[in-house]
Order: sequence, then C-alpha cells, then structure tokens
Amino acid sequence: MTNKLTSYNLPEDLKKMSEHELGLLSYDIRDFLIRHVSETGGHLASNLGVVELTVALHKVFNSPKDKIIWDVGHQSYVHKILTGRAEGFTELRKLGGLSGFPKREESPHDTCDTGHSSNSISLAMGLAAARDMNGEDYNVIAVIGDGSLTGGQAYEALNSAGAARPSKMIIIVNDNEMSISRSEGGLARHLTKMRTRKEYLELKKAFKKTFRGTAPRVYSGIESLKDNLRNIVVPGGIFEQLGFKYFGPVDGHNIEDLIDVLRVSQLFDSPVVIHVVTKKGKGYVNAEKNPDKFHSIAPFEPTTGKPLAPVKSMTYSGIFGEKLTEMAERDPRVIAVSAAMISGTGLDIFENHFPERVYDAGIAEQHAVDLAAGLALGGQRPVVAIYSTFLQRAYDQILMDVCLQNLPVVFAIDRAGNVGNDGPTHHGLFDLSYLSHMPNMTVMVPSDGTELQAMLDFSITLDGPSAIRYPKGKVPPMTKEIRDPLQLGKARKVADGKDVTIFAAGPMLEYAKEACTELEKEGITVDLFDARFAAPIDKEAILDSAKKTGKVVTIEDNVIPGGFGMAVTAVLTDHLPEARILRLGWDGQFLEQGGREQLFALHGLDGEGIKERVKKFLEGTA
Amino acid sequence: MTNKLTSYNLPEDLKKMSEHELGLLSYDIRDFLIRHVSETGGHLASNLGVVELTVALHKVFNSPKDKIIWDVGHQSYVHKILTGRAEGFTELRKLGGLSGFPKREESPHDTCDTGHSSNSISLAMGLAAARDMNGEDYNVIAVIGDGSLTGGQAYEALNSAGAARPSKMIIIVNDNEMSISRSEGGLARHLTKMRTRKEYLELKKAFKKTFRGTAPRVYSGIESLKDNLRNIVVPGGIFEQLGFKYFGPVDGHNIEDLIDVLRVSQLFDSPVVIHVVTKKGKGYVNAEKNPDKFHSIAPFEPTTGKPLAPVKSMTYSGIFGEKLTEMAERDPRVIAVSAAMISGTGLDIFENHFPERVYDAGIAEQHAVDLAAGLALGGQRPVVAIYSTFLQRAYDQILMDVCLQNLPVVFAIDRAGNVGNDGPTHHGLFDLSYLSHMPNMTVMVPSDGTELQAMLDFSITLDGPSAIRYPKGKVPPMTKEIRDPLQLGKARKVADGKDVTIFAAGPMLEYAKEACTELEKEGITVDLFDARFAAPIDKEAILDSAKKTGKVVTIEDNVIPGGFGMAVTAVLTDHLPEARILRLGWDGQFLEQGGREQLFALHGLDGEGIKERVKKFLEGTA
Repeated sequence: MTNKLTSYNLPEDLKKMSEHELGLLSYDIRDFLIRHVSETGGHLASNLGVVELTVALHKVFNSPKDKIIWDVGHQSYVHKILTGRAEGFTELRKLGGLSGFPKREESPHDTCDTGHSSNSISLAMGLAAARDMNGEDYNVIAVIGDGSLTGGQAYEALNSAGAARPSKMIIIVNDNEMSISRSEGGLARHLTKMRTRKEYLELKKAFKKTFRGTAPRVYSGIESLKDNLRNIVVPGGIFEQLGFKYFGPVDGHNIEDLIDVLRVSQLFDSPVVIHVVTKKGKGYVNAEKNPDKFHSIAPFEPTTGKPLAPVKSMTYSGIFGEKLTEMAERDPRVIAVSAAMISGTGLDIFENHFPERVYDAGIAEQHAVDLAAGLALGGQRPVVAIYSTFLQRAYDQILMDVCLQNLPVVFAIDRAGNVGNDGPTHHGLFDLSYLSHMPNMTVMVPSDGTELQAMLDFSITLDGPSAIRYPKGKVPPMTKEIRDPLQLGKARKVADGKDVTIFAAGPMLEYAKEACTELEKEGITVDLFDARFAAPIDKEAILDSAKKTGKVVTIEDNVIPGGFGMAVTAVLTDHLPEARILRLGWDGQFLEQGGREQLFALHGLDGEGIKERVKKFLEGTA
Repeated sequence: MTNKLTSYNLPEDLKKMSEHELGLLSYDIRDFLIRHVSETGGHLASNLGVVELTVALHKVFNSPKDKIIWDVGHQSYVHKILTGRAEGFTELRKLGGLSGFPKREESPHDTCDTGHSSNSISLAMGLAAARDMNGEDYNVIAVIGDGSLTGGQAYEALNSAGAARPSKMIIIVNDNEMSISRSEGGLARHLTKMRTRKEYLELKKAFKKTFRGTAPRVYSGIESLKDNLRNIVVPGGIFEQLGFKYFGPVDGHNIEDLIDVLRVSQLFDSPVVIHVVTKKGKGYVNAEKNPDKFHSIAPFEPTTGKPLAPVKSMTYSGIFGEKLTEMAERDPRVIAVSAAMISGTGLDIFENHFPERVYDAGIAEQHAVDLAAGLALGGQRPVVAIYSTFLQRAYDQILMDVCLQNLPVVFAIDRAGNVGNDGPTHHGLFDLSYLSHMPNMTVMVPSDGTELQAMLDFSITLDGPSAIRYPKGKVPPMTKEIRDPLQLGKARKVADGKDVTIFAAGPMLEYAKEACTELEKEGITVDLFDARFAAPIDKEAILDSAKKTGKVVTIEDNVIPGGFGMAVTAVLTDHLPEARILRLGWDGQFLEQGGREQLFALHGLDGEGIKERVKKFLEGTA
C-alpha cells in the first residue's frame, strides 16, 4: 500500500521541485496519510493540517543539519514521510515499528524525542545556545501549536529566549483556525510582499470567527483559553514585546507564502516567531468537520470516516464520567477539573449535565491542580481528571499545595500504567511511585468498574487528598457480586489458598485470576487479594496471609522502584522477615510502544507470564 | 523586645486609624522588623518593601473574611504583625515558633500555606470560583512579585482566570523598582485621580532605569528576565489583553494611593490587576543598598548590617561553585544552568569566571531543565544547580526530556534533606524518592566536600543523566585521605566491623561515625559504608557485608518511602532474605521547622539517636 512517495529520495528531492510540484506532492501526502492512518489508527487531523508547512520546512531548510523540534510530536508524520520513512507507515505505532512521535533513534532528522507539551521552545533555545558555543551554523526551528501555548513552560521559554536573543532560532506557532481579523496591521507591516490584498481577504473570510460578546463566568473547553490567548499572540502582542521578530499570520496551506516567510526568517539577528494559520484535518472532509474525533483515531473506513471496529466496550473513563455525574447530582461540592483532557477522561459526560461545574485549565496541569487546591480551600470537593503521564507535570503542586495542607482534592488518574501504542512518553508507569511517597496521600487502585465507582464515592468522604488510578484498557464486565464496602487501607480477599499469597494492584487482578486458575490445575492454591489501596496498604491482610503461605507475590502495572510491591516488601521485612516476596511490575526501564496486551505478554505480566513466574518463585523458595 | 505594635488590637484597630496614623504605624513596623529579624534572622528586604501595601490591604479589606494569598509567602511578616502575631516574632522560624511563611494552622488570616513560587493566581482563582458556587461574597487577593511572574504557572493562571473572569478577584503585582517610563498612558487612563502630575514625575524619576541598548546574547541573572517581562506587563500589555482590568503602576509606598486603588478595585465585574511599584529593603539603608544580601539573612547588627556570627564555614554550595569553575577551565562543554538561585547555589563563583556560560532561567525550573536538555542535545555538558524542593517543579522534564533520551545532564541538587528553619515547603526530603525510580538516572550522595568534587568530575564523564544531592549544612573539614576513586554504583568502605552493617547516604555518614564511636565503647563493631550512590546501589558490598553481620542499617536524610533504604531492602529480600534491615530516615511525614541539628536530634537521626536505634535493632534481632 505504498505509493510514489516511497520512490522519492527525500528530503533531497524536494529541493529540485517547483512550487507546483510541491503542491502535487502535498496532495499525495494527504492521500497517503488518510490511507495509512485509516488502517493503523493514529493522529490524523493534526498531520493533515501541517502538510504544506512541513513540505515548506524541508524545502527551505536542510535537515538534519538544521534542527526541527516538533512540540508534542503527534504532528510529525509528514516530517517522517519527507525524511525517508514512508515505508514504515504500515507498522506505525506497532511493536518494533515506526513511532507515532519523533524519536532520535529512528532517524537523524528527529532532533528530540517529544510527547509532552509546551517544551519545544526550551529545547530549541538550549540547542541554539549549544550551537553558538560550538561556533556552528545551523537553524533551530520549533513548531508549537496554539494549544501548547496554554502551557506555562512555553511562556517561561519565550521570556528567556526573548531576553537571550539567540539568532537562527525560529518558533513556528501553528494556530488552528485563528481569528485573524485583528492582525491586519502586523501583516501589512511585515509581509506586504507575501500576498495580495485579495488573497488576504479570502484567507480572512475563510477563517473569520465571531468573537463572543461577553465571556462566560465559568467556562469549559480549551477553546475559550485559546481564544483568550489569541488576544496576546496577535502582532504587536506578546512575541514582539518579549523580544522576538514576528511574522504573520501566514496562510499555512499556501506553500509559496510559507516558503517566502521561512526564507526571510533566517535573515535576522534575533529569534523569530512565525505565526501560521492552519486548519486541522485540512483536505479530508470528515476530519475537517470533526477534527477532535480525528485527532487520535482507531482504524476507520476512509470514505465514510466510520470506525472499522464495532463501538468500544465500556471504558474506565466512561464509568468515571457517569459516576461523577451521579455524585454531582447529590453533592453540590463536586467540581471537575481537567487539563485539556475533558473528553479523553470521560468528563464530557459530566459536562453535558453540569457545564458550569467543569474547569478546563488548558494544557496546564500545574494550574489545574492548584485551581483544585483553591476550590478545596473554599469548601468544594474538586476532582482532578488527568492522564497519569501528564500529571507528572504537577508533581510539586500535588505535594506542596495539596498534600502539605491535607486538602480534600481527588485525583482521577486515567491512562495509568501501560497505554500501548503511544509508547514511552505516554505510558503512566510512574504514578504509584511518585504518589506513594507523598505524606497524607491515599492511593487507590480499582480492579474493575464497580471498584472505581466505590472508590469515587469513598474519595469524597475523605478529609485529605486521594488518588484513584486506572488504565486505558477495557473494563471487566460489571458485577452484581456483593463485596465488602471500602475501608481505608483495607484489601479485598478474592480467593482462598494456602501455597502462595498474591496481592494484585488494580486491573492486574484479572491477569492474576487467570494465573490462579492455571496454577490451581497444577495443585497450587493462591490466597488472592485485590489490593484496593496502594497507600496506605493493608498490613494486617499481608501479614495474616503471609503467615499462612510464607510467600507473597505483588503485581502492579507500574515501575517496581517506589511502587506497591516495595511498600509490601517494607511491611514484610519489618514484621515477618521469614516470608519471601516476589515483586512483579515493570522492571524500572522505559517501556516501548506496542499493543497493550502484547506488551503485558512480552514482559511476563499477562496470565501466562504471571503463572510461570509464580511457579519459578515457589520452586526457588521451596 | 516588643513595642507598641503588640498593644494594638489588629487588624481591627487599623480601621479607625487615619492615613497619617497609618504612616506612623508603618514606621513602627519597619523598626519592629529590623530589630526582630536582626536577632532571629529571616527574610527582611521583601518585607520592608511591602509595609505600606500590607497596611493598606488590611485597612481596606476585612481579613479573614476577605482572603489574601501571598505568593511564595516570605513577604508575609507584616501581614503576621497586622493580624495579631507580633509577639510571636521572638520565636520566628524556630522549632514550635512562628513560621516564616503563611500557615493556616497558625491563624485564620493565613488563607493558604505557600512557600514555592508562582501558584497564587491559581489558588486565588479556585477560591474565587468556590466562593461564587457557594453564593458567598468576599474578595480574594493574590499578592505576587515580578520574580514570581517569570514562572509559567502564573501565566497559565492569568490566561485561565482572564477567560473565566471571576469578579472580586484581585491580583497585586508587586514590582520591585520597575522602569515605569513607558506606562504613562495606562496610568493616565485609569488612575488620573490618584496622583498629580508632579507626584507621578517624582515617582518616575525615582525609579527610572535606563533600558539597555542591545540585549546580550547570553545573559545571567533573573534581572534581565524581569526586565524582559516588563515589556509585557505595562498597561495595555498582557493583563488587559488576557481579560483583566489593569490599574497602575501605583507607588507602593504611598498609603493614600494604595488605599484609593484598592477601594476602586472591588467595584468591577471582572478580575483586576493592580501593578504596585515598591522598593526592596525600603526604609532601611543597608537593605536598600543591598537587597539581595538582606533577602534571607542570618542575625546581624542592625546599625551596620554586619552579620553577628563570624564568616560562615565552608559550604557544599561554595565547594560546588569552585569545583565547577575549575572543571569549566578544562572542559569547554561545561555550562551552568539555574533557576533564580545563582548565588544560593554557589554559581556566583562560576559566573565571575564564565559569565557567558551561565544561564539563569528565572523562577522557571521546567524551562531550566529543558534548556539543559537542549544544551546536551547540542553536545554540551550542562550542570543544572537547583534546590531540591524547587526541582520538584521539573519532575516531568527530568523524567521525560532528560532520562528518556538518556541525555548527559548533571543535576547539582543543593539544600537536599533537612534545611532547618525554612520548614516544610523548603525541606528537600523527597529527591532520592523522586529520582531513584527514574530509568537511566545515576544518583550520587556526597558525604563531604572531597566526595562532592570527585562526583562532579565523575558526572561529566557519564553518557547519561546524573544527580548529586547535598545539604545546606556545613561541610566536614576537607581531607587529604587517599580514597578509592569513584566507580559507578560502588560504595566506599569506611570502617570494618562484624556486628552490624551501616550504609550511610551522604552527610549522614558524620552522624553514623559518631554512633559507631559510641557503639564501639559498648563492644559493638560496625561495618560502615559511605553509600556514594543511591542509584544504582552497591549490591555486592551490601550482600558481602550482610553475609558477615546478618544485620543492615541504612541512614538517609530523605523520606523512607521510595528512598535509599528501600532500594537496599529490595536487594536483601531478593538475594539474602535471612538478613535483617533497619531503615533510618524521615518517617514519611512532612517535617516541621526548627534548627537543622535540632531536628535531626528530635527525630533520632543524630549520632545519639542513631546509636540508640541501632542498639535496639540489634537487641530485637539478636
């Protein structure tokens, strides 16, 4: 399923192409993207939006000598195609295949591994400074979206780079559908030569948006934040004031204009900002109409845009959104906070019912957490829903602003553990480790949807901070089973056995059960627990069971250092040193991309792997 | 040593005072501050700068109904005096005494415990939102310095609050000596009634600074960042564009003007920014001349401003600054990066020699770390010097941008562990825990100055990230002892014994030695090790010694969960389960303020405490 893209010698062949040929190439790239992503799944709308921009970048600059840094990096597919990796797209995001993000080990054209937001200007400034110190001569280009500009680090870096003023450092602000009606002055000042009045007016017409008359008191959705931001990113706004040369707005789908402005941008002694206006999903009608749906998408039928697989089974995110809505109906103190992950975390369900009780902080996890701390100080019960890997950005705020004051903030941590195809920047392997050492923090690990519901109810009754971490994976079927109600720090007994104790944290319980079934066939009976709490842990249950079996296994979807198994180990060494322990989890290295189930199997953490490792452990300690 | 301040009923009595009386009160407060801080030490210059502002705040607003949030919080002394806590100043920053920062448990007037920077706007927005949801009616006021505005979270919150537009939310930007020459327009527009043309010109004259002709390529010092920032905080700048009403600049030492603008600020339907210009150290000539020296100061003689105690003994920071300078002379790749802690970390020494090789990122740890990541990508060997507690802000960047790409960035982590009188927001108790679970990270713990020097040399030879963490405390006398050269993951044998093994992490070795001397008198001999590495740890040495003694004690100036002792525990449970282990360190709770030595003693971590606990451990495992 390759096309002529794979026959070019890229990026070199770009240099010889006319602007007309580049336009045709852009057409081929869009076709290629739609065909491939419809088969593999991946990020589509953002890549369709940067086709011309990426073509122009590789036409004007000489990668890998010139260095391009892609903020977040999910929009780097076109860059990958243009740097000789088109053939890899059949294996996009698969185990051992092409990464969905820039990756240095994949190509010298990938300057920096990215995945989290708002850091590209910092990285570019460091690289430009290193270059100047080495007496080298190349351009450093950061491409950053308007969403990423809502993250504070981008502003820290703009201020810093604007003061230091490295030359040949070019920041491209990729602005999706900005209202450019206010920017005529800046355009005229800088780039009159770039387009005629007529073309400009067409552009303006195409993208013009009506400003809202009055801003709402409480808002939700990152769009209002981006709109607000637009007030300061217009010409004469923040960039020039901070010390940058500003060019734009430029039509991001006009290759000629892009080539012109990129050529001009290299001529200055100070850092440059180029403000490019693009349309997410450009050129593919389904994605243009529904850019959010086509942001990150599973395999789909290209003509209709409909998903190939049947509707997804129930997810933890969905259960979270519904349960929180129900809680909010009863308790007016329940407020939801997120950081540009409203729909991904299931909060869209909540928002439909309580739009005035959702706060979207933007791509700004630090602010989100302290906004919640303020809400808690004011007597509310905020629930902060953020993916595990992105919550890392707010480590200090959780520790110093929430835990130190023992504030009742609930952290609903989605995408915890292995997330599969998005790979190492997106796996949430560290949250049990970074939360468990925080004083006052209660950490819960639901093993299924019923547990998640119970834990949310429980979390709101606590007078201090708590976290509930759950994975991307599908939820086991809902149960009608009568279970012991949640009690702080108490585990749940799942099966009775005498040969070995297993404490499973969260959904690893399912794999543990599979292992137990198999072990039982070999005459090994397991005292099986659903840990429920990773902090505080159930010392009594651990010790009681370990006294009986003498052997304890912990299983968690987290790195082992600082995690659940280590906490269990501490209890045993202090109180029952004669017991043996085996800790299963990620071995303390970063985890590659691949199918979620595939990765568990590969690393011996599926039912089969657990069974084998428990058997070995029992043999070794027999 | 109290004066009439303690006889007032504050803040109520303020309401009855005339503006003239408030001026006299301000004089008394300055006198009180200078006399007390000269005896106890503490933050002086920033508090002298906000005397009139704080008086005006408590005159106009009704605390604790109205909520004042002090960003960072070291400037809250005047607020403490005006809220009935003047008598507490004899015990300022001492064990059990008045905190040097706002503390909710101390007074209902302290809205929020603060200590780290740039979070006050987030907290204020959350509080204002909670108030509106509760249908309550009070003002929320955040006071934030211009330095804190260099932190990205402040910008995230400005964008968010500017879009949500809560009313009765007032941000006071406390700007130390801003150049106001460009702000005449805004002043005239908003506050013509507030002062005459003549007064304005005097203010302008007093604070006018010459803009630099051309900004240097490489800069150091937060001042250049603040200067750059000033381009966007002038009227018509970022605040109005983001949706705030803007007032100012206002003379922060004119009580009448301050009272006027604060009264006006409550009348608007949208959030308000008041830009107040103050002078650090105001009214105390020694501090006005030398505000940095009087920012955080040890006890001094009030007339001369000279320190009471003789010149400080050698510090880890000083050794770091000198050693790095020496390294930079040999290796052009050595670049220093900090985040508004140049002089605190000893980098002022380096800067004197290599001003063009120091980057001060501002109060912007996230940017600092990724600036270093960019430098490393460009072939340099950046050394990031940041205090342990503030480096928490960059947890995600260290993990995702440095460790994931295995970049050779060195983290020189000052103020690690117990820092004494600054209390819980400033202790660095968590870094071993948050760094040790990061893949690829080497963590070193120097036990004295010689070790620190050797570790710096060693760190630059590594091809991946490394961290060296060292405390605020004084350094043991430099040694001429011949030691084994550093080897990755290898501990250093300090004494030979047979009854118990002790692994001491970093400077806890000194206390361990004291304990060993005492234990020896009782016939107990210790196999004593300087751990040198907290990650990776020396499995071989641990196991060899544990085989001999059967009992292992670990000692660290860090919380126990996720720390050094837990890593040692894992090795023992996996390979020598019959060995017993005792982990000494902080018990996993936040640590109060107090003298540094006093806190170690109080928690059984000084020589005496260690001796007693080791004896008990030996008795229990005998």
